[in-house]
Amino acid sequence: MRHRDPVLMGPGPCNPYPEVIEAYGRPVLGHLDPDFIELMDEVGDRLRTVFQTENKLTFAVSATGSAGMEAAFVNFVGPGDTVVIGVNGVFGGRMCDVAARCGAEVVRVDAPWGTPIDPQALLDAHPAPKLIAVVHAETSTGIRNDLEMLGANKGDALLLADCVTSLGGIDLRIDEWGVDIAYSGTQKCLGVPPGLAPLTVSDRALAQLRDTPQSWYLDLNMIAKYVTGGGARAYHHTAPISSLYGIHAGLGVLLDEGLEASFARHQACGDALQAGLVERGFELFAAEGNRLPQLTSVWVPDEKLPDGMTEADVRRSLLFDYGIEIGGGLGDLAGKGWRIGLMGHTARMRNVHLLLAALDDVLV
Amino acid sequence: MRHRDPVLMGPGPCNPYPEVIEAYGRPVLGHLDPDFIELMDEVGDRLRTVFQTENKLTFAVSATGSAGMEAAFVNFVGPGDTVVIGVNGVFGGRMCDVAARCGAEVVRVDAPWGTPIDPQALLDAHPAPKLIAVVHAETSTGIRNDLEMLGANKGDALLLADCVTSLGGIDLRIDEWGVDIAYSGTQKCLGVPPGLAPLTVSDRALAQLRDTPQSWYLDLNMIAKYVTGGGARAYHHTAPISSLYGIHAGLGVLLDEGLEASFARHQACGDALQAGLVERGFELFAAEGNRLPQLTSVWVPDEKLPDGMTEADVRRSLLFDYGIEIGGGLGDLAGKGWRIGLMGHTARMRNVHLLLAALDDVLV
Repeated sequence: MRHRDPVLMGPGPCNPYPEVIEAYGRPVLGHLDPDFIELMDEVGDRLRTVFQTENKLTFAVSATGSAGMEAAFVNFVGPGDTVVIGVNGVFGGRMCDVAARCGAEVVRVDAPWGTPIDPQALLDAHPAPKLIAVVHAETSTGIRNDLEMLGANKGDALLLADCVTSLGGIDLRIDEWGVDIAYSGTQKCLGVPPGLAPLTVSDRALAQLRDTPQSWYLDLNMIAKYVTGGGARAYHHTAPISSLYGIHAGLGVLLDEGLEASFARHQACGDALQAGLVERGFELFAAEGNRLPQLTSVWVPDEKLPDGMTEADVRRSLLFDYGIEIGGGLGDLAGKGWRIGLMGHTARMRNVHLLLAALDDVLV
Repeated sequence: MRHRDPVLMGPGPCNPYPEVIEAYGRPVLGHLDPDFIELMDEVGDRLRTVFQTENKLTFAVSATGSAGMEAAFVNFVGPGDTVVIGVNGVFGGRMCDVAARCGAEVVRVDAPWGTPIDPQALLDAHPAPKLIAVVHAETSTGIRNDLEMLGANKGDALLLADCVTSLGGIDLRIDEWGVDIAYSGTQKCLGVPPGLAPLTVSDRALAQLRDTPQSWYLDLNMIAKYVTGGGARAYHHTAPISSLYGIHAGLGVLLDEGLEASFARHQACGDALQAGLVERGFELFAAEGNRLPQLTSVWVPDEKLPDGMTEADVRRSLLFDYGIEIGGGLGDLAGKGWRIGLMGHTARMRNVHLLLAALDDVLV
């Protein structure tokens, strides 16, 4: 099979930074090798900077972002615990599923897809929940949900945030905003292939860590002894060495650029794409004011499509004729719209120009 | 940090095949890209050949070998189910922990570490277990446990085998031996960095798949729709693209060599190492007859150690002065012995000679 190299403008994965691919080629070390432990510690340090936190337990879970979600719930939620979950997209819905499998009583607070969740509605949903959970950046709709007001008013509850699509792309202040548990993925605004789930946990949350979570693989009691064990590290599972080289390098690229510069780059690219789409008569799906720059959702009406082509046909043409991957819609947007990512290494103005030019070419 | 490139002769990870590292450099594709789906299908086909099975549900779990263990239990075992588990090392013990977290009644059958488990003892342990589980190749001791007699006499029980250290290194016949559920890791005899867990499930086991396993991430109901969905694939989680390039390439190397040739190579290397150790007056830990070639455990008596050096000091000297990683002992062997791996790309005669020469140099 020939190697195609599409520009990845879907909802993730993005194109990885070249430095990341180079890092995958580093010689494999043992998972207890002192140099590897040092590198893993550096990954923790870099993640603390990117998450804007001092949380000691900050590391990359050895599986993809969805496992980060599972780790965030199974370690803190058990049978009978009440959790309030905001749902305005696929990933809020997934959190309800994961929490229910932990035996939690789920209080679900819905908002229409494409609009943000009212933080007050989450705060009012239950008088004393164990945990309040919300998706910071909904990959299924392109909406940002506010965290800051939740953190300021959470009371005794823990605040859990899905930051899969936000980390590195928009401002995210774990400590200042009072987020207790947050997870992310590598394949979005970090510019690294999928495979790991950055996770950070506050001391306040750690004090409520379950003794024996239902998942052995994701048990933070044991994992903490490996990833934050100081000099002596207790083996838990064999760390995915090469993937950790990748995130180490990707975080290095991000921090060399600087967090603020990365946010500005994602914002500038998203603004340019969204303006270009509106200029061309498209209607954006996500509500103004909470619209993500890194993930743009857009209605694609039939009158824009060439005769006899569906939106899926256009995406296929973009992929195979133009070498550009964009994503289909979900929910109300399924078959009627697209999701376009500008994340990590993909978030470059040249890709905005490329996609708009291709759309001018292929659409009516 | 300079890049050290040790010869990895511990209990895993092994050194990856060069073709695998090259594959990590392939351009990242989307997880729904047709070419990536085709590659994932090829990974399934190659794993079927290596597992010696026709099982349709054969794929790489998106996490390390220990997550393969968890997937093997959470999908088939729930509260009140009786499972019989053989324990003659760390990984048998880990299976008991994982099964208990699923709510299972665990009937534990112990054998001394370094000796195999009597299959009849497992068969006699309970009149009607839901599942019988055993580790095929115990990485903690270097012992092979027999599967064939269990498969032939399991009755209505499902047979679950941990094949993390056996797959690709010694004969393993899933279908012929009647194994229903088996998982492995990439970083042992497949010659791929850690990160994925090959898993195969018989139709007989699939008929008993739980509707809603406690793990969302490892739920085979949903994962099967992505990895074996035919033309249309339902998104579950974002597959770790580059890691799948790696296993695809590693399995290609293995199948180009041929399964029988790979087994013979692992056997020849293990035989040579073990003979070399015995010649030098060392006593092997694992019982003859069930001794693994790919993982050798050996007693290291004080009289072999240079004055003032512990066995850990010698391992450190091997790592930093000679560029060779070997593993410490576990259980009875902790602080008193070593575990030496000859797996995947590491299983080459030159590494046997290298290690024996280094030991001649550093030991008394």
